[in-house]
Amino acid sequence: MKLGTVSINGAQRVAVAVGDRDERAVVLYPGLTVTELIEDWAAAGEVVERAVTDGAAKSVPVGGLTWLPPVPRPGKVICVALNNSANVDRIMSGPDKPATFNKPATSLLGHGQPIRLKQEFGRVHPEPELAVVIGAGSDGSGGADIARDDAMRHVFGYTIINDLTSPTMRTQDTFHYRAIHPKKDGSEGIEYVDTWVTYSGRYKGSDGFGPIGPWIATADEIPDPHALTVTCVHQGRVITEDSTQNLMHKVADVVSYMSGYQTLEPGDIIAMGTALKASSSGGGAVQNVNLTELGGPIEVTISGIGTLSNPVEMR
Amino acid sequence: MKLGTVSINGAQRVAVAVGDRDERAVVLYPGLTVTELIEDWAAAGEVVERAVTDGAAKSVPVGGLTWLPPVPRPGKVICVALNNSANVDRIMSGPDKPATFNKPATSLLGHGQPIRLKQEFGRVHPEPELAVVIGAGSDGSGGADIARDDAMRHVFGYTIINDLTSPTMRTQDTFHYRAIHPKKDGSEGIEYVDTWVTYSGRYKGSDGFGPIGPWIATADEIPDPHALTVTCVHQGRVITEDSTQNLMHKVADVVSYMSGYQTLEPGDIIAMGTALKASSSGGGAVQNVNLTELGGPIEVTISGIGTLSNPVEMR
Repeated sequence: MKLGTVSINGAQRVAVAVGDRDERAVVLYPGLTVTELIEDWAAAGEVVERAVTDGAAKSVPVGGLTWLPPVPRPGKVICVALNNSANVDRIMSGPDKPATFNKPATSLLGHGQPIRLKQEFGRVHPEPELAVVIGAGSDGSGGADIARDDAMRHVFGYTIINDLTSPTMRTQDTFHYRAIHPKKDGSEGIEYVDTWVTYSGRYKGSDGFGPIGPWIATADEIPDPHALTVTCVHQGRVITEDSTQNLMHKVADVVSYMSGYQTLEPGDIIAMGTALKASSSGGGAVQNVNLTELGGPIEVTISGIGTLSNPVEMR
Repeated sequence: MKLGTVSINGAQRVAVAVGDRDERAVVLYPGLTVTELIEDWAAAGEVVERAVTDGAAKSVPVGGLTWLPPVPRPGKVICVALNNSANVDRIMSGPDKPATFNKPATSLLGHGQPIRLKQEFGRVHPEPELAVVIGAGSDGSGGADIARDDAMRHVFGYTIINDLTSPTMRTQDTFHYRAIHPKKDGSEGIEYVDTWVTYSGRYKGSDGFGPIGPWIATADEIPDPHALTVTCVHQGRVITEDSTQNLMHKVADVVSYMSGYQTLEPGDIIAMGTALKASSSGGGAVQNVNLTELGGPIEVTISGIGTLSNPVEMR
């Protein structure tokens, strides 16, 4: 099932995509939220199925709806950095486990909604990514310290995220400084260590930097999350054609590993890292697509999930 | 007024500190939340005042309550990096505006609750900080692009946060790599730029890395947020004695600036940066206090607000 959130007269409603090509959607009755459905899917799944069947005659075109982020306000958004095998030859040193940052929920926006940029954001480029939506887990064991073998039972489904990035703000918000470390010899007192630190608040977390959706494809629809094609199209031109098989840290690895640090809760989002293999038709990389200068629309398609498309406006 | 959240039989209740030295608290009737009060304080403030007066006879000792984060699940936690004048001589290059990262709500825990560490976290040290709690704004203008002159009207109050940090995980989650940049000459295609990037997910965002509270002192109680003493005490020993006057970017600057990037919402938290001036009685820095090795309790006191104290457990 493909499950999203739409806005009808300012109120949030659950919408389910229907039709051979997900070209229509059934808007469910008020009072349900996607987050509540995720928390209690074992009981709610069948109720939703029935509501969709009952409401099918009233389905409306997908394009006529105002889509919000499928989970409108996730508790957290975890993003995995540099997780594509195409990165390997660029990395001189780095962790062999997933390194992550958190994007605030205010950075998210739905399918079709405008990305509203400011000139002072500098360069802003797209990063097309598979996103995992965390579920309640099937055994009631909670979302901390999940074993790798249990990890996929904590995946409710998958959606698409465009992890917008400003390399301009990244450079601005990097410090080169002498970090205070305890003395290596173990004596009390400190010593200084030459360090670079980058802070992601602005360059990854600004308003509009997280287009997500249009909906969540439930896990049963995606038997193998590492066999999906990821395509990024800017103004009708294909920028990247990649596959989730190139993700180095797999979904089960990331869910299990991160649950040892940040307890995962139903509705949490994990962005798996950028698909960045350049299109075989040539011509640049996602980093060449400066949305601040070039505008939109910017589109990400993942096979089995759908297409996330957003216009760009300046503000 | 000093307003917090406590857990009574597993349910969240609002608690208000009373007595000359905030040694007792009145627990308000069920059905109220601190977040709702913040959203509608203009109407709710008097109601709460009256409830406290009516309930004063039933006040209980502060130490007998189970304190949760005062806003149990803020929409976001923004943390300002390297914002103390004591840092200046250590910074070789960096922004002259606030640089920030986001901590997930799952990293927060209340006053008195145990910080539960793992050996694999490596070194973990305290960072005592003033935290701003964002309000609804008095003019209904919302939390984006707030003018500096209006910024203080968006401050609901202040609390204390201990921004726990693992320098071990910081080092592990730093990449030295060749970033992809568009060609400087403007032609299509890319070039590589030698870059260091640090990701804060684990070293700032792990479970338990955000003790916060015990409560929020409403803004009327803190006429000048830059005239507060900040003391950090570990196992009875004073580690830092600092003042919020040493914060380089002031509360109004940070609220105004960040609202231009991340829309601020009622209940959002802004951690203003570490108070790190070493105690005049000598002996190390916060970086010397490795909680993983030494255990707790670790305590932060800010004048006019209160004392946040947490034990440390290994898990």
